[in-house]
Amino acid sequence: MAEDLVFYANPMSRARIARWMLEEVGAPYRTEWLTFDGTMKSSDFLAINPMGKVPTIRHGKTVVTEAAAICAYLADAFPDAGLAPPTDKRGDHYRWMFFAAGPLEMAVSIKAFSLNVPKERERSIGCGSYESVMDALSFAVTQHPYITGETFTAADVYVGAHISWGLQFGTLEARPEFQAYWDRLKERPASKRATAIDDEEMHRQLAAAKG
Amino acid sequence: MAEDLVFYANPMSRARIARWMLEEVGAPYRTEWLTFDGTMKSSDFLAINPMGKVPTIRHGKTVVTEAAAICAYLADAFPDAGLAPPTDKRGDHYRWMFFAAGPLEMAVSIKAFSLNVPKERERSIGCGSYESVMDALSFAVTQHPYITGETFTAADVYVGAHISWGLQFGTLEARPEFQAYWDRLKERPASKRATAIDDEEMHRQLAAAKG
Repeated sequence: MAEDLVFYANPMSRARIARWMLEEVGAPYRTEWLTFDGTMKSSDFLAINPMGKVPTIRHGKTVVTEAAAICAYLADAFPDAGLAPPTDKRGDHYRWMFFAAGPLEMAVSIKAFSLNVPKERERSIGCGSYESVMDALSFAVTQHPYITGETFTAADVYVGAHISWGLQFGTLEARPEFQAYWDRLKERPASKRATAIDDEEMHRQLAAAKG
Repeated sequence: MAEDLVFYANPMSRARIARWMLEEVGAPYRTEWLTFDGTMKSSDFLAINPMGKVPTIRHGKTVVTEAAAICAYLADAFPDAGLAPPTDKRGDHYRWMFFAAGPLEMAVSIKAFSLNVPKERERSIGCGSYESVMDALSFAVTQHPYITGETFTAADVYVGAHISWGLQFGTLEARPEFQAYWDRLKERPASKRATAIDDEEMHRQLAAAKG
């Protein structure tokens, strides 16, 4: 019997990344919608994820948090989906997933929150400068059609979600190579299904909030 | 024939994390020492890593950057070292490596650089609050003797290096569970060998700088 796959989510969060991955995998899963200041901070959920954050998944007895970790985990847990390279060819897979989870996320956050890192200390901060991060991202999306080569994998879900989000909200430079890369991903049926599910729930919540 | 394994490093950088992992793996490798404002920004090295950062490894034709990615990659590329769980049991492996590379690194950086995230925007920033990150780290190191269970793996190199560094430089709270976890790791021969190599080069560089 397949193990129970539960997805803890909120439509206005990085859980959208994990849903896209879940839809790419294609295994049945059940969504539990959590509210930021309510059920996400309940003792039941904090026992699952002490950070009280979504996305979080539970697969049987295994709990996975962090959007990137969920993408990497699901690709391995459901090998038939073909979303991870073989274990002896995972250089780009790990390189660019950890790049997006680390330097890219941090550099974009520092810029979006107008946090001021003195120029002379850029060497000490893990992400380096925003410009060098943008240059590395350009490099990542122009080596092959997809992050790890000729075929779409989990790294494209994670890096692609960052690029889609960044272009939509203006937190990334609108470089033509970012747009070209996203154009290769945006018509994927799994991405469209995921967006439709989250948009529907978001509109339901917004309508409920209006009374 | 084994593929050439080259390690681009500087002893005063996160390359120390990657060297520990290389020493755990035990495969022969060659170190190329790079200087921050010199060879790290040379066109030769930028062609390998456009971010101009270390650690970077080249294994045959595969280039891997980001300390966490190097740990994950080497564990898979050298399976005989037994440093990665089987692919169907990687929940904690990915969860805590991505946690350390993302929220932990970011929360510690924000604190160390005194960057001011307004309380009401903590929800929007990927790492959440420093306190919630510390609590999650406490959770991670108290579930089992090691991050993924009863045995030491690549996730312990990466999370352990963060904890060792943070305790040494005061960027982490000195919680007893962090010290207890590090006490389980610090006598590993690979960690000691790695530290000895980097310390020797660091002292050589400092002596050379003094003239």
